Amino acid sequence: MSTPIPWPVPEPELPADVHPALAAVARAAHRAYGEARRRHTRAELGTETAMGADGTPTMLVDRLVEDAVAEAARAAGANLLSEEAGFLDNGSAVTLVVDPVDGSANAAAGVPLSCIAAVVSVDGTATEALTCWFDTGRSWHAVAGRPTPYRTSGRTRLDGAALNVLRPRPAGRDAWHRLTDRAARIRILSTTCLEGALVAEGSIDAFADAGGDVHRIMDLAAAMVTVPAAGGAVIDAFGRPLEIDPDLTRRWSGIIAATPRLAEEIAAAVTAG
Amino acid sequence: MSTPIPWPVPEPELPADVHPALAAVARAAHRAYGEARRRHTRAELGTETAMGADGTPTMLVDRLVEDAVAEAARAAGANLLSEEAGFLDNGSAVTLVVDPVDGSANAAAGVPLSCIAAVVSVDGTATEALTCWFDTGRSWHAVAGRPTPYRTSGRTRLDGAALNVLRPRPAGRDAWHRLTDRAARIRILSTTCLEGALVAEGSIDAFADAGGDVHRIMDLAAAMVTVPAAGGAVIDAFGRPLEIDPDLTRRWSGIIAATPRLAEEIAAAVTAG
Repeated sequence: MSTPIPWPVPEPELPADVHPALAAVARAAHRAYGEARRRHTRAELGTETAMGADGTPTMLVDRLVEDAVAEAARAAGANLLSEEAGFLDNGSAVTLVVDPVDGSANAAAGVPLSCIAAVVSVDGTATEALTCWFDTGRSWHAVAGRPTPYRTSGRTRLDGAALNVLRPRPAGRDAWHRLTDRAARIRILSTTCLEGALVAEGSIDAFADAGGDVHRIMDLAAAMVTVPAAGGAVIDAFGRPLEIDPDLTRRWSGIIAATPRLAEEIAAAVTAG
Repeated sequence: MSTPIPWPVPEPELPADVHPALAAVARAAHRAYGEARRRHTRAELGTETAMGADGTPTMLVDRLVEDAVAEAARAAGANLLSEEAGFLDNGSAVTLVVDPVDGSANAAAGVPLSCIAAVVSVDGTATEALTCWFDTGRSWHAVAGRPTPYRTSGRTRLDGAALNVLRPRPAGRDAWHRLTDRAARIRILSTTCLEGALVAEGSIDAFADAGGDVHRIMDLAAAMVTVPAAGGAVIDAFGRPLEIDPDLTRRWSGIIAATPRLAEEIAAAVTAG
């Protein structure tokens, strides 16, 4: 029998200078996810309710949080580009690119590793990013072109790295092992955006999709602001440009790494086969 | 350049009826780990300082937290069986079996997934267990023979399960894929004791060491009390009895599962090769 997740969802801890629209969607997401946990069992939260604008199934937890995010974006006067709803035009020069629930399967099951990740985009350029971990309220904030408190580990070599990955898929098993066999530590946390934050702050050396083309732009957008500011790099394993684009059928194999050199070394390992 | 982990370590949130010696070691461990984070960089915390009584290297973070745990056990008048120090006889009928820092690599690096796990053992029988997640203060407590609030997911089949594992090792790759290929979700969190708590509360269906003989008794002892009380099972993949034993060279391939049937099905998959 499926049970509710008993743990509370605290308010996000936000820095004073965060963009008001980012703060608004983060607070709305935390409240909505907390409410969803109180009202629904794990099985209910994980029920697929529809097909999202990105072509993947939407779970109930995704829909409940995204509805709250969409309302908060509208109230803040910003456009929204989001996984399930696609592009919502509220007539603004500012678009929020948001993954309302990164790590949806974790969020539905009660594995305490999920977050909201959002960026401010102006004319297709990400200018500011916020990632908030639902279970703790811990947040990571970065503004393009400004110093941040985050410093990556600085690692340049894959051999001996602490590497986070997605699970291996049958078709990509060789690339997965080419990559993971060289790492000192392997983790699969199933939450790309939190894993990007861990790269930015130096807790892990890198995160990689080993060629599975799993990532949508909202999975990588916050890292694209936060990680370079901390000394790292975000690239696609196959060299495709990472672009904020309302076409949510586009996919990338994201690599988020402590240094540009490590990112390139990981890409070389993924594509060597 | 390695940096300190900036996040605080809160006090553990403990139920009123927890054994005072368990509460004492949990509080001491949280304080010591918080202090270790403030004083040392990630690289320092991860430096191997000695060889533990269990035959694996001791990191600085392990030593600092275990020293505090040993002092708390002594002050509480309990014996201690711990990974690094081995058995400390304080002349008591009660022995605390403790993993002072489960997920040591996470704890040293700043990956926010590590905990203290401890049981009260009387004449080799575990009677009470406490697991406290350092980064949140969240705790799981169970007393043998008493009802607990935890309910596992109740899953009985491996096919489609949410399964946590250790990373694959070259020698055990076949068993690892036999197991993981059948699961719907795979995670590697690198903290067996927290993963056991997630099985107990129904957030994941199972955790397994796919035949690597990685587990010491303190990796499994808390789950051995908490998980059966919640409907699940803890077994060794090769059918060896799980025993609290001061001989810390003994190893098991622990399986922590939502039901006895799921545990047996995982064991069969691991040993089928």
